[in-house]
Amino acid sequence: MTHYKSIGIIGGMGPAATWDLLKKIVEHTDAADDQHHIHTYIDCNVSIPDRTNAILYDAPSPLPSMIESGKKLEQMGAEILIMSCNTAYYYYDELSEALSVPMLNMPRETAKYLNYSGFQRVAVLATDGTVKSGIYTKELNALDIEAIYPKEEHQRLLMSLIYDGIKHGITTKKELPKAELLNILNDLKERGAEAFILACTELPIAFDLMEIDANTIDPTLILAKSAIRYAGAPLKDTPWYP
Amino acid sequence: MTHYKSIGIIGGMGPAATWDLLKKIVEHTDAADDQHHIHTYIDCNVSIPDRTNAILYDAPSPLPSMIESGKKLEQMGAEILIMSCNTAYYYYDELSEALSVPMLNMPRETAKYLNYSGFQRVAVLATDGTVKSGIYTKELNALDIEAIYPKEEHQRLLMSLIYDGIKHGITTKKELPKAELLNILNDLKERGAEAFILACTELPIAFDLMEIDANTIDPTLILAKSAIRYAGAPLKDTPWYP
Repeated sequence: MTHYKSIGIIGGMGPAATWDLLKKIVEHTDAADDQHHIHTYIDCNVSIPDRTNAILYDAPSPLPSMIESGKKLEQMGAEILIMSCNTAYYYYDELSEALSVPMLNMPRETAKYLNYSGFQRVAVLATDGTVKSGIYTKELNALDIEAIYPKEEHQRLLMSLIYDGIKHGITTKKELPKAELLNILNDLKERGAEAFILACTELPIAFDLMEIDANTIDPTLILAKSAIRYAGAPLKDTPWYP
Repeated sequence: MTHYKSIGIIGGMGPAATWDLLKKIVEHTDAADDQHHIHTYIDCNVSIPDRTNAILYDAPSPLPSMIESGKKLEQMGAEILIMSCNTAYYYYDELSEALSVPMLNMPRETAKYLNYSGFQRVAVLATDGTVKSGIYTKELNALDIEAIYPKEEHQRLLMSLIYDGIKHGITTKKELPKAELLNILNDLKERGAEAFILACTELPIAFDLMEIDANTIDPTLILAKSAIRYAGAPLKDTPWYP
């Protein structure tokens, strides 16, 4: 029996990103058997309202459902909380204030990693909600990293890849717009991007499916590793933290 | 907002099988956006004692922890329960009696599928606990399907693949014994096996990694589809049920 802190995942935002986050926690924990993994509670609460719609178009706020999920996970026994959705961190301050156990912040952990790795200018690929609310810009700028974004028509294609592609349940390479995406990455590279933050949890899944070879940063992976570390469990790979 | 029944997963047995089960539920639900997926609660309770050790060697029973997990999931709001571990279904009768909401039975759902598909003799690849307790034999025989098993030294290799391989955290093809496994499958085929039930949830993961092309039956996938059906949500593929 291990004495690691247990993790609670406020999930369902989206459901594919939820299993992807659990997968990354499991794969990066150094454990010799089931019993040396981290006890993890998940509320894959798909009825949480869309975050981008709420931030940009005044649709119902996801905050009450997120608080409800967090409280359920606390009741289950979760000792650290994380969320599988970048855009959801727009509500981080209000949400963490409403909950009793500490919550990690995915954009903040990502910015710490980028700072530690010496990046100075990175591109943020994300939903309109994440882009326009500036969640990543704020965290990156706080550590003197410049954030750049795709131009308008490219942003529209990304939103379609996220909503009509992965969230819609596309799971094969041939249904995804690889050439168009490479074009977006090239444009950002020409504008000085040293790396690409896949700042919507559907994007690492899409990039994997398309087998895109680029200098990508996966906040889900960084969050998974941070959560393992905060739980007190050994990481399988070298920790990136100082 | 959907009105599907919510699913609870008594997980952690093992943790990799847990995300694999959620992945299969998500990928096979026909949903146009996050909000049309099924609300799923997961207790990835890795401290549940090993099932094979309890069944065969009188080690501590996992039943009390399994009941505790099930009750927590009921409290969260789960309306159907499933487990991500074949061997755990040894405790199905006692467990489902201790819980208030209905629980699906993975070996039983698998036998129903095989019967519906016209199979008459199948090989069961599983842990020693599943093999020796006869969980699959019982369900298959009840529907007039014959169950055959690997010979003793082959069974030892399978156990090592499960425990020293996947549960140990192996995630790349080259670390797995593909040639030996193909040898086991050949032997079973010569003995009349029409298909191979991957009756330990670590095995579909291992077979995927090794890219083994054989007539395999994945109980996790059958359970995922049954759960989607019982939840009342639309399946993306043709349902196998009559």
